[in-house]
Amino acid sequence: MHPVSASVLAPKDVLAAAAGAARPVARARHTMRAAWLHAIAAALDAHSGDLIPVAMRETHLPEGRLIGELARTTFQLRLLADRLAAGALSDNQVDHADPDWPIGPRPDLRRTHVPLGPVLVFAASNFPFAFSVAGGDTASALAAGCPVVLKAHPGHPDLSRATADLVLSALTDSGAPGETFGLIEGHQAGAEAVGSPIIKGVAFTGSTAGGRALFDLAMGRPEPIPFYGELGSTNPVVVTPRGWANRPDAITTGFAGSVMLGAGQFCTKPGLIFVPHVDEFLMRLPNLVAGPLLNDHITAGFLRSVKELAALAETARGAVLADEVSPVLFRTGTSTVREHPEILDLEAFGPASVLIEYEDLADVLSLVDLFPGQLTATVQGSEDADPGEIELVARLAEHAGRVLWNDWPTGVAVTDAQQHGGPYPASTAPLSTSVGTASVARFLRPVAFQGVPSAALPSELRDTPNQENTPS
Amino acid sequence: MHPVSASVLAPKDVLAAAAGAARPVARARHTMRAAWLHAIAAALDAHSGDLIPVAMRETHLPEGRLIGELARTTFQLRLLADRLAAGALSDNQVDHADPDWPIGPRPDLRRTHVPLGPVLVFAASNFPFAFSVAGGDTASALAAGCPVVLKAHPGHPDLSRATADLVLSALTDSGAPGETFGLIEGHQAGAEAVGSPIIKGVAFTGSTAGGRALFDLAMGRPEPIPFYGELGSTNPVVVTPRGWANRPDAITTGFAGSVMLGAGQFCTKPGLIFVPHVDEFLMRLPNLVAGPLLNDHITAGFLRSVKELAALAETARGAVLADEVSPVLFRTGTSTVREHPEILDLEAFGPASVLIEYEDLADVLSLVDLFPGQLTATVQGSEDADPGEIELVARLAEHAGRVLWNDWPTGVAVTDAQQHGGPYPASTAPLSTSVGTASVARFLRPVAFQGVPSAALPSELRDTPNQENTPS
Repeated sequence: MHPVSASVLAPKDVLAAAAGAARPVARARHTMRAAWLHAIAAALDAHSGDLIPVAMRETHLPEGRLIGELARTTFQLRLLADRLAAGALSDNQVDHADPDWPIGPRPDLRRTHVPLGPVLVFAASNFPFAFSVAGGDTASALAAGCPVVLKAHPGHPDLSRATADLVLSALTDSGAPGETFGLIEGHQAGAEAVGSPIIKGVAFTGSTAGGRALFDLAMGRPEPIPFYGELGSTNPVVVTPRGWANRPDAITTGFAGSVMLGAGQFCTKPGLIFVPHVDEFLMRLPNLVAGPLLNDHITAGFLRSVKELAALAETARGAVLADEVSPVLFRTGTSTVREHPEILDLEAFGPASVLIEYEDLADVLSLVDLFPGQLTATVQGSEDADPGEIELVARLAEHAGRVLWNDWPTGVAVTDAQQHGGPYPASTAPLSTSVGTASVARFLRPVAFQGVPSAALPSELRDTPNQENTPS
Repeated sequence: MHPVSASVLAPKDVLAAAAGAARPVARARHTMRAAWLHAIAAALDAHSGDLIPVAMRETHLPEGRLIGELARTTFQLRLLADRLAAGALSDNQVDHADPDWPIGPRPDLRRTHVPLGPVLVFAASNFPFAFSVAGGDTASALAAGCPVVLKAHPGHPDLSRATADLVLSALTDSGAPGETFGLIEGHQAGAEAVGSPIIKGVAFTGSTAGGRALFDLAMGRPEPIPFYGELGSTNPVVVTPRGWANRPDAITTGFAGSVMLGAGQFCTKPGLIFVPHVDEFLMRLPNLVAGPLLNDHITAGFLRSVKELAALAETARGAVLADEVSPVLFRTGTSTVREHPEILDLEAFGPASVLIEYEDLADVLSLVDLFPGQLTATVQGSEDADPGEIELVARLAEHAGRVLWNDWPTGVAVTDAQQHGGPYPASTAPLSTSVGTASVARFLRPVAFQGVPSAALPSELRDTPNQENTPS
């Protein structure tokens, strides 16, 4: 095999290739697409020794974290592959003809799903494996049967190219069309691809400003297309009075770990925590230690955000420095938040969070309706929920995609029941998830077949579904 | 009971009321919401004698059609109610904690769905019952647990108010909050409601121009919201050579009936038909007879559209008149369509269609990729599909939400497997359906609960789900 480089083609050629691959990829059997995903996972595992050092150099993330993230990435590919091969990702429905249907004879109607077509995936900076070239969006689009055009994140260009080359080799070696996956680079190329009639769906993880601009482009097309954007979230945590009474040290230790994880560069970092007593909370809080940020762009954004927060709240721990990243906590009270609800929306991407002192749970509940859409909301409560805590859970669920109890939002398990999304700006598509096996549904469109003879039905809709569907 | 009038409130009061009802409606038990839907259906049935004459006067549709449409409307309410009460509309997923999950202990994760909040429904003109005040969008939003703000269609104002009064009485009589449903009128009020932060989702059935303008408003909000717009579709039909050889009279008779049904004012009207021999087709075609159109606005649109078509294709049957609606068929060939693909997109809402003569199926297939997104695509084929016909079905499924075989697209069965939608402009949300029980999912957002104690979980997620979830 000659070495294949995914990164030599011009963007327009990558798009044209994806267009050409759409039908063969859509028609590939589920078991075959599953084999492609397994091949990608195997290639990543086999080359982790090459990839991890590049990732360390480009992202400043520590080796242990990157090894774990790569394991999560290959697990995700394999989980989707296994579910796909088992038929568990299809949600089919068959209504046999019914002459006695109340409002007139019911025809034979059978619904399955077809892939959207070529999907454009914007890689994120903060997870150079799990939300990048071979991450969840790529895995779920391929599982759905969509060719992927991957817009590399400029924060890790060498890693992106190396990963893309592995993905492409693994795909072609396992029998996929070579055009199933392609890499593009550069802001302009990404924006132009959003507008290309070849692209039928977009997945994006990143900032609210950048994501909204691309969302607007996608919605402004002559043919608007689904845009799965995960933008911003401050991930509020509420420590209830009973929770605080029961588990103060577990809570302060857990909080410090969750805020500082990955130097605070998690989309699920708890950026707000409601506590009954800020002083007591601070007294028990361990030292905050964070590694360097991913890159200069992220650093500049963090310095800007903490400066904005400093204008609205006092510094409670650490310091806001003019040109250096340092862990910092702010403190304020519910009346200030009521006056300046923008505090609830101000995501400082990095090692920072805001402690909000409250009077009683009713005081917190009166603020919940001001929460912008959230990926997560967390209750640190008692052992068994009391009525006030039960109400709090129900109210937080009105604003978040995931509600946690006595746990921390960083770390998003890859499972069937996972939900990573939420009302805007947490997601531009709050009915979908970008993590977990349900993420595949983002790239599938329902189609009903009415009265279609068995031979012309997709195999999964046949009464005896053992035959392969092989339109020539 | 004092008579309740749904139409006396100002739009801003209707919106405020919907905001107030959101939480109680969301928390109402499924069996209770099902009872509300049954009460609405019963009220409509009980007052059909009052409603039908108003509908006849305002829409010019014949009595038999309106009686059937009202039956479909109440059936739809009852079907959703029954599925809701049976728990069949929830798609829950439970992952129990798993200490041996491959990439680290898996927490207890349980996913259910919560209502989006107040939904704005734009009624359509052409189905004054089934896609209007108490139609499918209203029924599915209420089933999902969302208050409904109904923008009345100006084509049938008296019927809209009378129906709204019945809906509101039925809701309050069956125990729903009085603010669960409200009526607004006027273009400006509708557009303003799309921009209201109270509204969390929009459903629309109507023209591409009008729908796109509202879609743009919804996407341009500070917080964009799901917009379920069913806009335009030309619903191509392909008569295969074998289909034509086997069943010429069934095809011409079926086609004439489907095009003329409701005077051609169906969103699924076959607006394009590919036939092997136009002259033979016309020879066997019955006379075309259509009733009057719904109103002057629709009439003006039809006259404009057929004039546009007349510039691109010959008249084959009937005539294009300057100021009078008359059934008309056009004829052209595949080479003209290749030169003027806009023919494929030109929906003449009324009694008109275009016959396209082709050479062989390969000639048709070469045009299919030019099809804009379609609600339906139909094959009139042989008894058992041959390879060419099988390929045709597969290719049409790439562009349509529903693919039919030896049947006609007008008449959309209300069932579990139904899919009414498709790529843009058929729908602005091609992953959803606006007809059938799956339509409820449009108004539900997934939420995962992580490690939440049983008492604080929605009842459907508990290990023993017999307890009611009643947050105070």
